[in-house]
Amino acid sequence: MTLRTRLSPAAASALQEIQAPVAGALEHVIEEMKRIVASETGLVNSVSEHLMVMRGKMMRPTLLLLASETEGTREAQAAAYAAVVELIHLATLVHDDAVDHSVLRRGMPTINALFSHQVSVIMGDYLYSRALLELVRLGDLVRLEVLARASNELTVGEIRQLAALDALAFSENDYELLIRAKTAALFAAACEVGALCGAPKHRQAMRAYGVQLGMAFQVVDDLLDYTESAATVGKPTGLDLKEHKATLPLIASLPTMSPNERAVVSELFNTSEPADDLVARVIEIVRDQGGLDYARRRGEEYAERAEEALGTLPESAGKTALLDTVAYVMERRA
Amino acid sequence: MTLRTRLSPAAASALQEIQAPVAGALEHVIEEMKRIVASETGLVNSVSEHLMVMRGKMMRPTLLLLASETEGTREAQAAAYAAVVELIHLATLVHDDAVDHSVLRRGMPTINALFSHQVSVIMGDYLYSRALLELVRLGDLVRLEVLARASNELTVGEIRQLAALDALAFSENDYELLIRAKTAALFAAACEVGALCGAPKHRQAMRAYGVQLGMAFQVVDDLLDYTESAATVGKPTGLDLKEHKATLPLIASLPTMSPNERAVVSELFNTSEPADDLVARVIEIVRDQGGLDYARRRGEEYAERAEEALGTLPESAGKTALLDTVAYVMERRA
Repeated sequence: MTLRTRLSPAAASALQEIQAPVAGALEHVIEEMKRIVASETGLVNSVSEHLMVMRGKMMRPTLLLLASETEGTREAQAAAYAAVVELIHLATLVHDDAVDHSVLRRGMPTINALFSHQVSVIMGDYLYSRALLELVRLGDLVRLEVLARASNELTVGEIRQLAALDALAFSENDYELLIRAKTAALFAAACEVGALCGAPKHRQAMRAYGVQLGMAFQVVDDLLDYTESAATVGKPTGLDLKEHKATLPLIASLPTMSPNERAVVSELFNTSEPADDLVARVIEIVRDQGGLDYARRRGEEYAERAEEALGTLPESAGKTALLDTVAYVMERRA
Repeated sequence: MTLRTRLSPAAASALQEIQAPVAGALEHVIEEMKRIVASETGLVNSVSEHLMVMRGKMMRPTLLLLASETEGTREAQAAAYAAVVELIHLATLVHDDAVDHSVLRRGMPTINALFSHQVSVIMGDYLYSRALLELVRLGDLVRLEVLARASNELTVGEIRQLAALDALAFSENDYELLIRAKTAALFAAACEVGALCGAPKHRQAMRAYGVQLGMAFQVVDDLLDYTESAATVGKPTGLDLKEHKATLPLIASLPTMSPNERAVVSELFNTSEPADDLVARVIEIVRDQGGLDYARRRGEEYAERAEEALGTLPESAGKTALLDTVAYVMERRA
């Protein structure tokens, strides 16, 4: 599978290793995604094709497929569920970009930029509704509920983000609630539905793993925004700061800042389009105050809990890959 | 129940008569809507409260409830389904306004205008996902499928509208496909689910009725845009023309226009914010060419088919109200 995101060679190879046990199934997931979104309308198909090209690392389908084979046999329907999970994720990204009026995502133009803002809003709805129709076709209300609940949490996460009018008053607890809804909810649902597709006795363990892995993933993602150059992550460094989003590194370092340092941060958050050097100064302050180290430690704690959650699983290629996924998520900066 | 839309006294009294058999149940539907959207997040609740205030005539819940009692007994769950249908409708309106950046809806400020464009996109998603969770709770996959299919059709309708880049090349067939998806699909789903909630043997008849009533409703709605003053419909006359939307009156009158008349229409569609007098001239041309009469006749044909679809139903207060609804839809201009 071609990787469309700009991972470092080491990260790309680690991802390939994780996906090896389910590589064939992942190809099938892509076919399922195409089947589910196929339409008679030309515009829908043009947008879908672009989405398939810009699709990312297929993390959530990978998790679902790995979770489904921890007891050796995977249900044939797992690929369709994995496709649904990825489509829900894509729908969220499309609406995210519509909300933010973003022009770039993973280093590629967004639907917003390529088509229009209107198309983004409606195509997000289209992807959601096709995913739902597929869940209805699959006919399992338990799994449908898991995914419906995750979809609702994704939305609540977005609302939490919008409702945070005073970004600098955002507490670590607010941040945790946000990333739990925004990221961990769908990771958890993917893992839980995966378990239901072949290893139902591990349902709770896989859900717990998914929550912790999702938290670690988002903390590292937010950290990368402070540490990586544009070429590696495919988006400009410090983008969250530019968009006045307070993530863990900043939240953790605010309490110990001097009044002068705090004033620089306030200046950034009061400037509608902060210049790169102002962003760079704030990143410097956050690093000096230990914000990056703190976020890294928190990420590692989530990662440890994710590994612990796998304790009850029997040894298998799936379990090994799930453990490797934790390491991959933590080492993405490499 | 207070009517928030600006109906004429005659229309308001006709609507009250139609809703009389289900007036108590409609109050219950409103309570169910509040229950389904209730949230821990303040912003969500503020937006929901506004949506409850600006809610319209509750046409779709009314149809669902009337359809559910055509055999005398209505399931207790009908009110929850009626609430879900209205929430899906509201979600669509919220996203519609987000797409169009509209500031007024039914003579009241939109979520767009009162909160923000971002809030509109996300709140639409929230309403959809809460409606879906309620359907999962109710646990009936057949009804869930009917409503999931309608939601998808609503989206496809929106896409058809966006994809119509050359509005003046929009054919009557394109228009029919559009309003079938945009309006008739949810009317049909409301009637079908209503039948499933108490009179399942009338499922197909009620679905057919819903499709035809929905088509008539939209044709009349589009006609009102050409004929009514702002005070009656709560939005400026000729709004569709101002937004470069070709609806049935225009589509029907284009073929017989003189080159000069056609040039006036082209001028309007090539002007980004056409002035009121240009809009008035096009309305005049459409009227002269018989476009309004033609649309009226088409509406009446749909209305007749809606009445015919009720032929197999036993006489009941519900059936009478469903017949009266057809007359109400056709006479809304009064």
